[in-house]
Amino acid sequence: MTRELTALAETLADAGRDGYLIDADWEDPNQLYLSGFTGPDPFLTVYADGRTHLLVSGLEYARAKRSSRADVVRRHAEYDFQYGGREERLDMYAAFLDDVGVESVLMPARGPIETADGLRERGIDVAIDREDALTALRAVKTDAEVDRIRAAQRATEAAMAAAESLLADADVDDGTLVHDGEPLTSERVREAIEVTLLRHGCASAETIVAGGAQAADPHDRGSGPLAAGESIVIDVFPRDTETKYFADMTRTFAVGDPGDTLREWYDRTLEALEAAVDAVEPGATGEDVHVAACEVYEDAGHPTLRSDPETETGFVHSTGHGVGLAVHEPPRLSMDAGELEPGNVVTIEPGLYDPDVGGVRVEDLVVVTEDGCETLTDYPKRFVID
Amino acid sequence: MTRELTALAETLADAGRDGYLIDADWEDPNQLYLSGFTGPDPFLTVYADGRTHLLVSGLEYARAKRSSRADVVRRHAEYDFQYGGREERLDMYAAFLDDVGVESVLMPARGPIETADGLRERGIDVAIDREDALTALRAVKTDAEVDRIRAAQRATEAAMAAAESLLADADVDDGTLVHDGEPLTSERVREAIEVTLLRHGCASAETIVAGGAQAADPHDRGSGPLAAGESIVIDVFPRDTETKYFADMTRTFAVGDPGDTLREWYDRTLEALEAAVDAVEPGATGEDVHVAACEVYEDAGHPTLRSDPETETGFVHSTGHGVGLAVHEPPRLSMDAGELEPGNVVTIEPGLYDPDVGGVRVEDLVVVTEDGCETLTDYPKRFVID
Repeated sequence: MTRELTALAETLADAGRDGYLIDADWEDPNQLYLSGFTGPDPFLTVYADGRTHLLVSGLEYARAKRSSRADVVRRHAEYDFQYGGREERLDMYAAFLDDVGVESVLMPARGPIETADGLRERGIDVAIDREDALTALRAVKTDAEVDRIRAAQRATEAAMAAAESLLADADVDDGTLVHDGEPLTSERVREAIEVTLLRHGCASAETIVAGGAQAADPHDRGSGPLAAGESIVIDVFPRDTETKYFADMTRTFAVGDPGDTLREWYDRTLEALEAAVDAVEPGATGEDVHVAACEVYEDAGHPTLRSDPETETGFVHSTGHGVGLAVHEPPRLSMDAGELEPGNVVTIEPGLYDPDVGGVRVEDLVVVTEDGCETLTDYPKRFVID
Repeated sequence: MTRELTALAETLADAGRDGYLIDADWEDPNQLYLSGFTGPDPFLTVYADGRTHLLVSGLEYARAKRSSRADVVRRHAEYDFQYGGREERLDMYAAFLDDVGVESVLMPARGPIETADGLRERGIDVAIDREDALTALRAVKTDAEVDRIRAAQRATEAAMAAAESLLADADVDDGTLVHDGEPLTSERVREAIEVTLLRHGCASAETIVAGGAQAADPHDRGSGPLAAGESIVIDVFPRDTETKYFADMTRTFAVGDPGDTLREWYDRTLEALEAAVDAVEPGATGEDVHVAACEVYEDAGHPTLRSDPETETGFVHSTGHGVGLAVHEPPRLSMDAGELEPGNVVTIEPGLYDPDVGGVRVEDLVVVTEDGCETLTDYPKRFVID
């Protein structure tokens, strides 16, 4: 039993429940973490008495026995379930829990209503895990997990280099970037990034390459021709296709002179990034780190969500988030966020946005250590490509 | 109001509920279908009185107003919610439902327990949508949706061609396939497929390229060197990154002589595919189509899940599934599956498996028409590459 699952046993003891139940497919990071299994359809995982039990369909049985982290793997046929409907499926779940020997379970808050209600109707005591114990466990990485994130980060850097070299090789024609005789578009840069990711064992379909006013919306993926002198935000957050761990990095570039306003924004953003990284240490809160970034911006006269909760320009998001089996997970670096501890892996990603100016964001990935933090990102910060 | 949402209104009327509530991020296909919005964090969508209402964070507000399918978009700040915890969030949800004017809702069976329990505590009547109305709506595609699937299918075919040409160009060295002086591995063929998909506007990180005994497990993605004479199953099911619709196709190849057993399996599989496609028409059930495929195999002496529910060799899965905003969705082509109707898009993918022999699967995609079906797949079926 690993360190992490010992902590899960304590959560169950504190809650006075017999087992921890997840009903989800592998895309749910808690399911992947607890089961170690990439079943494409929803399956049950129960952790009880120091052991992990899986219930899968016959199609998944051999693979689950071979590749999952579970101590016990059972299959639907053991419960004579094959073509049954909802009620028969819930009967099977209740019988499986009986075999595991649990009468009461905790389920994650976002677990399925039908399973919770159906098990309650069958006499199982189902409570919501309000502490979100598995997500909290996932927030503290082992050295092996940090290494998996590092590997994904190396792929991310290779992809960013491919993007930067496209920008550096571009010519300017009437204000538009041109490469190999064609307008250089967000789509073309994104393709170069994602192909490079694939060649490094990672995948992403959500990469952001956004210039001009598009860069002012932090969630706009970007489309169409890129222009000289505008800021171009490139945010790459791929998943390693083998380990399933994510990395995350953002750089902002401008080809040709971006003007004084964007230059000031970029300098302030690097300053905010540095202040936030300096604030990261065990015992500091996510709020401390966020405030460190906000203060740099506010001192320079930029609005932040802290100074004006209604603002739509300035620093309109939090300073960062955990990264692991999910690209967004605890800890958060925002107001009211709790204490950091060694093994947390978080992004630090301050930025400024205004549709009339553009967007600037710079993002590094750090791991909290015993006495501060270590930056996992190894990529230069160059704004203007002349 | 579109045809589909009229049907959702009927579901609500039948259930005697005011609204249909989804709490999910865009990766939930029902959320994507109803909201038309790709919010990366969970958000609320309520359909009531012929109108769709969204509740999103401030960060998503502008993009939701611009790009979602909703009639009304509200943001957290309207409810003074910014840094609140679970209870404050549930209070906001209840206030939002009050603004929409609903006191009772249907939620999908896999909606989050916490939202259901929390709204019940706040006096909202929450019932599970046991009919799975939105998923049922999604199963019947409009012509525009079929066109999006066709576009993804064209990308899939380009990717399969890239894979097939790698196999065709390979040399054999001591039984192993060799390309450009390196062993040709599952990983290398998968990379060629996924790079081609990206260049055609699609993405996938789960492509199957599995040879030998690996091909005998329908969910094994495959790894390591590919060998001459073994069957190599290639299953490509990418998502269009813009429209979010999937396609799905499988071909099986052998480089050099696969021997009589695999040749017989391949012929039987084409026969089963043809029999199943012939059975597809409005009014036929998914079971009819599945039985058509099973009968071909059973008549030739191969076990199927129909003839032996415990079998681990032979035809060990169903004949197919719907494809749309999810890669697996209704209708199912399996025992107890209901009637097909025009606009259903389904895979037809019979196969045979035995670790001692290998695996064979061939998969086309068809759309049910008024009087039969149209095959959306335009790719040859060649088993042996000499």
